[in-house]
Amino acid sequence: MKATIERATLLKGLSHVQSVVERRNTIPILSNVLIEATAEGGLKLMATDLDLQINETIAAAVDQPGATTVSAHTLFDIARKLPEGSQVSLAAADGKLTIMAGRARFQLSTLPRDDFPVIAEGELPVSFELPAETLKQIIDKTRFAISTEETRYYLNGIFLHVSADPQPVLKAAATDGHRLARVTMPRPEGAEAMPDVIVPRKCIAELRKLLDEVDALVGVSLSSTKIRFDLGHALLTSKLIDGTFPDYSRVIPTGNDKILKIDPRSFEEGVDRVSTIATEKTRAVKMALDRDKIVLSVTSPDNGTAAEEVPGEYVSLPFEIGFNSRYLLDILGQLDGDTIEVHLADAAAPTLIRENDKAAALYVLMPMRV
Amino acid sequence: MKATIERATLLKGLSHVQSVVERRNTIPILSNVLIEATAEGGLKLMATDLDLQINETIAAAVDQPGATTVSAHTLFDIARKLPEGSQVSLAAADGKLTIMAGRARFQLSTLPRDDFPVIAEGELPVSFELPAETLKQIIDKTRFAISTEETRYYLNGIFLHVSADPQPVLKAAATDGHRLARVTMPRPEGAEAMPDVIVPRKCIAELRKLLDEVDALVGVSLSSTKIRFDLGHALLTSKLIDGTFPDYSRVIPTGNDKILKIDPRSFEEGVDRVSTIATEKTRAVKMALDRDKIVLSVTSPDNGTAAEEVPGEYVSLPFEIGFNSRYLLDILGQLDGDTIEVHLADAAAPTLIRENDKAAALYVLMPMRV
Repeated sequence: MKATIERATLLKGLSHVQSVVERRNTIPILSNVLIEATAEGGLKLMATDLDLQINETIAAAVDQPGATTVSAHTLFDIARKLPEGSQVSLAAADGKLTIMAGRARFQLSTLPRDDFPVIAEGELPVSFELPAETLKQIIDKTRFAISTEETRYYLNGIFLHVSADPQPVLKAAATDGHRLARVTMPRPEGAEAMPDVIVPRKCIAELRKLLDEVDALVGVSLSSTKIRFDLGHALLTSKLIDGTFPDYSRVIPTGNDKILKIDPRSFEEGVDRVSTIATEKTRAVKMALDRDKIVLSVTSPDNGTAAEEVPGEYVSLPFEIGFNSRYLLDILGQLDGDTIEVHLADAAAPTLIRENDKAAALYVLMPMRV
Repeated sequence: MKATIERATLLKGLSHVQSVVERRNTIPILSNVLIEATAEGGLKLMATDLDLQINETIAAAVDQPGATTVSAHTLFDIARKLPEGSQVSLAAADGKLTIMAGRARFQLSTLPRDDFPVIAEGELPVSFELPAETLKQIIDKTRFAISTEETRYYLNGIFLHVSADPQPVLKAAATDGHRLARVTMPRPEGAEAMPDVIVPRKCIAELRKLLDEVDALVGVSLSSTKIRFDLGHALLTSKLIDGTFPDYSRVIPTGNDKILKIDPRSFEEGVDRVSTIATEKTRAVKMALDRDKIVLSVTSPDNGTAAEEVPGEYVSLPFEIGFNSRYLLDILGQLDGDTIEVHLADAAAPTLIRENDKAAALYVLMPMRV
């Protein structure tokens, strides 16, 4: 294998693939990136952690086609430090990859390309397209609610499913048992027969990074066990979580009759301020609702007390309710607009938060005892 | 105590003092900042860790003079989150400090001001002034060489001493036994009888942060046990390290006859690049010198090899020498100009690095076996 490539192109390609590679690997070849110089010209980069695989195609002048694998992080670090604007020559021979640019020359040990594991995609019978912007929104508005508890592996991702009643829609949901985030959008063409799938957190994180550089339609293809995102130069393939996402629709309250209308920014800033004195252990913020008078407060045995009145519209019976301030801030951070709706029932019941009844995103937050 | 103060003023003052306060304290009052509202108007803030003390004076409208102490980090966090441009009212009564701004209200528990420890300065018979810019240079060019080994406590700071022969100078030096950094400057007026002192690392770090906001002359006063820096609004008082700094002049080589002249930037970049493949354990970079030909190289059993030729002027006998790449980069990062001088003797002897024989800063680096 022999190829020449612009340093910036190599760096960008490697920055995508190295991020899939785990820092510690018990299987040595999983630390490596597969580099293939193709006869048609161009370089194919590939990295995997056995659950998630990235394929990236970058422009290069190929003198001699071939393939090898080297440490992804080391090659990335080298590419970062090579002089800006330099041409990088890559040549593999005798178990070594030689990298030359300017006056610098590196030799890295390689592992055979044939040992490199490839995720067998199998058939991906369902495929549709989504604008990159829509995918970004789905991820941003739900990912914070993904559970990090490894024992509840079926909550460690975003649940995607379609429903036809009353309108054909695609829904994305994430929950950790304390809060739920759901985004609903019109069902894209081709997604009619989509199986219910749970896309793992790491795939979501890598996809989100790649989306920052994409502005067009993203192809989504999936079966009940695999999903593939086609982002043009990059192809992300992931195993899906083999589990059953709980029937979350049951926890979305429908009869909460106490409605608070409030500016999400002053609500967010108020919660942020009073929670300053909350300790790691007690993250609870109390919300006391009275006729058009909302008082947020925190009491910390160590630090003292904090209170702030926030303007809001509220006409139901006065009552008090507590929330985890971190969870509340996560949700408020995703809400735009001048006013949002908070649907409350009582101090123990799930609370619904949304911009309005037309909004794509909807949040449910369990209260805390305060 | 009762006072009103602009949020930005309070925030800036607290940002200085909270940084002296350690995150974990076994003595509760050391977590606190002493706030004193003076009859003349204005607020005095003070914090200490028993070795280092900061006093800061800020503008405020005082309704009722008095003093109290509250958690420095909590008050700083609150000030950070208060609305920009707001007026903050502080009122101490009944063991509580009440903070009000906009619609927010906080009550923090306090500890009595009389329990707050103050560093007894004693007499500070020596005093002189240094431009802030000069102090910054002294610190930047030497602090990286300060030892972090706690057992060698007498190396945990910057050594300041005067000498009259042949010229009256003030010298600042730091070393960890592997490298030495020394800055020499004309002796300021008033420093004639200055005792040799070692200024502790934490004092240096806090002083350096404060210097970023100062542009005038800084007053330095000291005895053989204490030092005080007067930065206008802020006063930093520190105990000095009670120990003897080694006679470092003996390790500065004077007879190294192999002279390399080299551009510090391409030297630095070359070392940075080839050390990419060095592992945490082996940080050694090899430098092979031949007639006007300098080759840097690293060999890592895990990763492979790296080499780069760097242009330089060298006419002595060819030989090879190894350095810790991290230490070499620390020194090169402080050197400006188009060319620097590297004075070498052999592969085992201390190497001298400096811009030229007029330069204020001088560095000595011990080689490594490669």
